[in-house]
Amino acid sequence: MTNKKILLDHGSGGVASRELIETVFLPGLANPILSQFEDSAVLSVGSTKLAFTTDGYVVDPIFFPGGDIGKLAVHGTINDLAMQGAEPIGLSLSLIMEEGFPFDDLERLADSIAEAAKTSNVPIVTGDTKVVPRGKADKIFITTSGVGVVPANITLGSGLARPGDTVLLSGFMGDHGVTIMSARAGLSIESSIESDTASLHTLVSALLKKNPEAVRCLRDPTRGGVATVLHEIAKKSHVQIEIDENRLPVRSGVNTACEMLGLDPLYLANEGKCIAIVDPEAAEDLLTVMHNTVEGKDARIIGSVQESKPDHRHGRVILNTVIGGARVVGPLSGEPLPRIC
Amino acid sequence: MTNKKILLDHGSGGVASRELIETVFLPGLANPILSQFEDSAVLSVGSTKLAFTTDGYVVDPIFFPGGDIGKLAVHGTINDLAMQGAEPIGLSLSLIMEEGFPFDDLERLADSIAEAAKTSNVPIVTGDTKVVPRGKADKIFITTSGVGVVPANITLGSGLARPGDTVLLSGFMGDHGVTIMSARAGLSIESSIESDTASLHTLVSALLKKNPEAVRCLRDPTRGGVATVLHEIAKKSHVQIEIDENRLPVRSGVNTACEMLGLDPLYLANEGKCIAIVDPEAAEDLLTVMHNTVEGKDARIIGSVQESKPDHRHGRVILNTVIGGARVVGPLSGEPLPRIC
Repeated sequence: MTNKKILLDHGSGGVASRELIETVFLPGLANPILSQFEDSAVLSVGSTKLAFTTDGYVVDPIFFPGGDIGKLAVHGTINDLAMQGAEPIGLSLSLIMEEGFPFDDLERLADSIAEAAKTSNVPIVTGDTKVVPRGKADKIFITTSGVGVVPANITLGSGLARPGDTVLLSGFMGDHGVTIMSARAGLSIESSIESDTASLHTLVSALLKKNPEAVRCLRDPTRGGVATVLHEIAKKSHVQIEIDENRLPVRSGVNTACEMLGLDPLYLANEGKCIAIVDPEAAEDLLTVMHNTVEGKDARIIGSVQESKPDHRHGRVILNTVIGGARVVGPLSGEPLPRIC
Repeated sequence: MTNKKILLDHGSGGVASRELIETVFLPGLANPILSQFEDSAVLSVGSTKLAFTTDGYVVDPIFFPGGDIGKLAVHGTINDLAMQGAEPIGLSLSLIMEEGFPFDDLERLADSIAEAAKTSNVPIVTGDTKVVPRGKADKIFITTSGVGVVPANITLGSGLARPGDTVLLSGFMGDHGVTIMSARAGLSIESSIESDTASLHTLVSALLKKNPEAVRCLRDPTRGGVATVLHEIAKKSHVQIEIDENRLPVRSGVNTACEMLGLDPLYLANEGKCIAIVDPEAAEDLLTVMHNTVEGKDARIIGSVQESKPDHRHGRVILNTVIGGARVVGPLSGEPLPRIC
């Protein structure tokens, strides 16, 4: 018997979330697939490799510049499949609604979900609806799950980065996070900034078609941002990842809003971006592939993978700053940004 | 612009739930798989038939005699797969928690989930955790999804019942519904009644092994109960289903509680029972198979499938009462039993 309680930070996708899962759930549930901690589980069915993933969406507000909770759920689950190299074949949609939720809003979300599924060319094949009494949930929560097929020749993983590899980021950082935090803070100065919510499976498919052997790892930096995802890759691959501050793509409006709100773009959620760790010899070609897609037109090389240092064998992330310094970049910790997705 | 709002009844699994999905979601999302409205979607991947399903659990209270929200979620999703004849291969677990939820309760749920997954021999392979501020959710909501493989020779569906078929029910009706409603009403007179939450994939596998051709349709009568599920089968198969009141298995404690609470066991949720529509020539054999399992030891033949009548071509359900009358049984309507699962 303890008096410990769940805190907002346990849902932030950073250190506390990870600890919660490792201490409360893994002891009883551990199995080789779950313990991989990838964006999707990969299951073998005969000779077929299936990807399977789930994510709950509780974003507040539910409508925001550039998207809404429905679109976010569809794109997010497609992206979790895509990060394992899977071609999505179907999504599920589970809604938990608060009594009194306006029909008009639900219809607007249904249209948005339908449009996101249609433009992504991934069908929603099954679903569920629950309603709880007024005051027992906040408007609507959406959990989407997805199934996809991983081509036989593709194996991606956060533990597969190698010294010498190049780190690509498919576009500007922090757009989604700043959009949500600005909306909640009532800031409207940066009207040009909107959520980057988008499906990335077309971009991923193009990368893997161009050079399937050269791509080691793909991750979408959602909750916890680029910093947290790079930290996970560094730890799982036992490497040092160095990124250069002057190469990090951040819109000036996002920088301004971050200064006003006291946020760091490296830790802000992105909902239509991916990090790709790739063979350095293929990096320029793969960057060009990204540039030829709508979602990756602002892609950049942001850093490289190095041997881990003798005193940091477990791996770490270093930011080479614009003023010539070097700063260790940890995962998101103690700075909860609740309901960002 | 309307002033229509979501009502509790929209989540009850009856007429209102169905209308909500048909009017709000199907117009934009419709595809041949979703429109089947089965417990699981069945997707083809090469020559493999995959079942895929999702369900949100919002039951109140989260701990109840015979189970808890975690066990319910694991069993419920396994059962939705099993009802399509699928062998479950993996589950996902998505948690939405309220800030301040006690760690002790979460650990108790984690243990229960782990035990349910272990005894069912189905691994949890992926998951997600979100936390919302205090007052924005009620303790914990769990959405589980599942993937399974349907043997090549198995095709089950609510539209496949044929005149002459026999209707089996795997055990007593209403245990789960009465347990939850009694707990909420503060009734403790029926301490012998507890939720029937259980996994049915072993029972289903035994039925299909015994006689794969003889089983037309399997459904688990959760929200909406036996009445609502039989109504759906009758409508989709365009048949009349007749059930005999004197054959319906209801525990005396459930009957007593139903009388006190004004509930009808035919509409109460079950979480470890299935209805099987089977070839009459195989019915006795399949009943014996059920009797040889823990979950089906109280199984009974409860009725039969008839040709639809000229003035009810769309199908209907008739209850032959103990006093010799006949009553039309509709789906659950206008009697919301919120947060029953």
